[in-house]
Amino acid sequence: MAGDDVMERPREDEDEAYALTPETMDGIVEAAEAGDDAALRKLLDVLHPADIADLIEQLGGEDRQRLLSVMGDGLDGEILSEMEEGLREEVIGSLDPGQLEAALGDLESDDVVEIIEDLEPERQAEVLEALDAEDRAAVEAALSYPEDSAGRLMQREVAAVPEHWTVGRAIDWLRKSENLPEQFYHLILTDPRMHPVGYVTLGRVLGARRDVRLDTLREDSFRVIPVTQDVEDVAYAFNQYHLISAPVADGDGRLVGVITIDDAIRVLDEENEEDLLLLAGVGDESLNDRTWAITRQRFPWLAVNLVTAILASAVIAQFEGVIAALTALAVLMPIVASMGGNAGTQSMTVAVRAIATKDLTGANAWRVLRREVAAGLLNGLAFAVIVGIVGLLWFGSPMLGVVIGAAMIINLVVAGFAGLLIPLALEKVGIDPALASGAFVTTVTDVVGFFAFLGLAAVVLL
Amino acid sequence: MAGDDVMERPREDEDEAYALTPETMDGIVEAAEAGDDAALRKLLDVLHPADIADLIEQLGGEDRQRLLSVMGDGLDGEILSEMEEGLREEVIGSLDPGQLEAALGDLESDDVVEIIEDLEPERQAEVLEALDAEDRAAVEAALSYPEDSAGRLMQREVAAVPEHWTVGRAIDWLRKSENLPEQFYHLILTDPRMHPVGYVTLGRVLGARRDVRLDTLREDSFRVIPVTQDVEDVAYAFNQYHLISAPVADGDGRLVGVITIDDAIRVLDEENEEDLLLLAGVGDESLNDRTWAITRQRFPWLAVNLVTAILASAVIAQFEGVIAALTALAVLMPIVASMGGNAGTQSMTVAVRAIATKDLTGANAWRVLRREVAAGLLNGLAFAVIVGIVGLLWFGSPMLGVVIGAAMIINLVVAGFAGLLIPLALEKVGIDPALASGAFVTTVTDVVGFFAFLGLAAVVLL
Repeated sequence: MAGDDVMERPREDEDEAYALTPETMDGIVEAAEAGDDAALRKLLDVLHPADIADLIEQLGGEDRQRLLSVMGDGLDGEILSEMEEGLREEVIGSLDPGQLEAALGDLESDDVVEIIEDLEPERQAEVLEALDAEDRAAVEAALSYPEDSAGRLMQREVAAVPEHWTVGRAIDWLRKSENLPEQFYHLILTDPRMHPVGYVTLGRVLGARRDVRLDTLREDSFRVIPVTQDVEDVAYAFNQYHLISAPVADGDGRLVGVITIDDAIRVLDEENEEDLLLLAGVGDESLNDRTWAITRQRFPWLAVNLVTAILASAVIAQFEGVIAALTALAVLMPIVASMGGNAGTQSMTVAVRAIATKDLTGANAWRVLRREVAAGLLNGLAFAVIVGIVGLLWFGSPMLGVVIGAAMIINLVVAGFAGLLIPLALEKVGIDPALASGAFVTTVTDVVGFFAFLGLAAVVLL
Repeated sequence: MAGDDVMERPREDEDEAYALTPETMDGIVEAAEAGDDAALRKLLDVLHPADIADLIEQLGGEDRQRLLSVMGDGLDGEILSEMEEGLREEVIGSLDPGQLEAALGDLESDDVVEIIEDLEPERQAEVLEALDAEDRAAVEAALSYPEDSAGRLMQREVAAVPEHWTVGRAIDWLRKSENLPEQFYHLILTDPRMHPVGYVTLGRVLGARRDVRLDTLREDSFRVIPVTQDVEDVAYAFNQYHLISAPVADGDGRLVGVITIDDAIRVLDEENEEDLLLLAGVGDESLNDRTWAITRQRFPWLAVNLVTAILASAVIAQFEGVIAALTALAVLMPIVASMGGNAGTQSMTVAVRAIATKDLTGANAWRVLRREVAAGLLNGLAFAVIVGIVGLLWFGSPMLGVVIGAAMIINLVVAGFAGLLIPLALEKVGIDPALASGAFVTTVTDVVGFFAFLGLAAVVLL
């Protein structure tokens, strides 16, 4: 058998096995520019909607318009669903009601909700118009739950059966059922009051004899999600407990929907991206936002930084006389501030991440603090020796070396303190630590760095 | 029915619905400290292994030891599997061979592989010893694949049937089968040479009549993962295409295993954490690492920062004479450098994230560059006016205001360039942009910031 490998599988460059390759992109752009609609359709046909969405995002204005007009009537709702929201709004705006109706027609209600909730109010009304009565009711019901709650994330189609049923009865019911979810992985077991009380994986159902009672096959991992729970907590539960799907219950404990792993991953991925960007002082922006949008979006972060920088400058201003007497201080002072800022950012990022994953709590904060401060002290000592020697060799002054070394130790120890305590304190008062920690930490390390260095210099060197 | 809510569901504070609550933690610590093993066991019994692992991670040395000794013989392998790797190695070291064997006995082979691959070689041998012959063979086979490849991530137990089978035949086979995976969501369809050629969700199998051929129920989303593919690409595919499971094939295209979404999420989450920490100059560390470990680990990053800081100082040193003549320059110069550093970090973080999600490619790099530079120019103009006025009011010199404003514009434009081009260039030459971009970008913005400000001052003000 090993010899007759006639149907050779294509062996691509494995690095690019799953991405939209540059060659495919080029082919599509060429076909679009040549106006060769047939070739374009053929190239698009083999792509996954997620890849087509990426493609549209990456194309420039004219190519994008041409592509959208070729896809025109046949625009797959999945593509809209995969698209980054700013662009999605633009594309939806360019569709006529018939096209929009066709695109949204074959989406699950949770995907429609996700599309709709990001739109401006007037567009929302347009999109709701385009839905048939049943879908519209489902979407409106979902929108009645708070933003970022489980109720927005769930799908309402569920595969649920009474807990006392047997495998055979469940299979017969499934074969007759018309309204099953597109994808489902568990049968949810309910009591007579429609409270979800357990679930069985489909694999177990398939592996058991027809006369086995479903409730004997229950999974341990069963968890019920309250419909008003924040999606962030939902995503945490899916990640922590390796859930594939979980029933959602209303305030009376009744089954109202189900959340599946793909929804949870999307939330998890968005949270991760948000933390990464917030830590760098970038809010909710995308590669497709226009210049003006990102300029305005980044301005406030830079403005906060300006205030902290001016604070640091005010510290320096206290020592103008010292600097005038010894300009070497002006040369060396950014080193102390910069090292403190870096060490503080290290501690802070570890803390922000650990808070997000619920690994840093009251139970270990004190232990972690001692460790951060001790590490700051040790690295402070190491770098004190190094910069002390640099100071000595560069400016020929042993005392200058001692001053910069001592300032380095002070600043790295303070960086360890501030890097941990500032995110913890922000979390405590209900502010997202990823959002605001950076500005506070660098303010502290800048101010302490300049003050320690110039202050010591004033005392020791003058 | 609505009235007789006798079996009230517990309504916890929803914020804490899923986390290890401080109360639970306190109870466990108390029981451990009182030596009340019975109470301790009772408290632990209701916790998910992932929560117990978190608990062990968060406890201090003595409490941790007490807890581990109470769990002793009955230590669940799942807990080891959920534990952060540094601590896991410590715990495994404290177990005797019998305990280790018991703990690993009920894990799936892919979980054992994950535990084993992080251990020191001598411990690896110990753990392999503790496995029964069949499991050992499975684990050794997995370890024969390269690190971070699909072969390490997959499980070898698969639910696969010939593509020409009917639903009925598959169900009969599943009912008889002894060696099914613990969790599976698809039936993989194979051709006579054991090549995976499609898959069917279990939901479809359950919903179809017994005489329906499986290959008529195939899913579109089917993708085969090459066994040597990097896990990062595997995770990307799961995320991009919303996969729940995917078959893995060897170089001849034969089915050798299956990867499920829970493995992919773990990789995705690790990648996200890695990017976040790398961008902040923190490598692979955890809250449980000891002081000495994190000190050594962070040292090189600080050392790189020291070099860039000294470079910036060298630039300042060129202008000592200028500073001596006008100490206001020393006061104001950190503002220009700091603003540039922040703006550069903003651009860079957006770029690093977009490269990781494959959203920033050759197709749109030019367009994104123009946008970043334009945004830098616009914010540069805005902040030029602001700092110009600050300079004027503070030091009463209109020309000083003009100089700092001009330097601000230059540095923010350069920050836009550097923030985008440095990550792209690093990616091009095969270096992880998250790893090295930060040092380069801040070097550029520091050097340019000081040079532009002091250089312009030398020309204009003296």
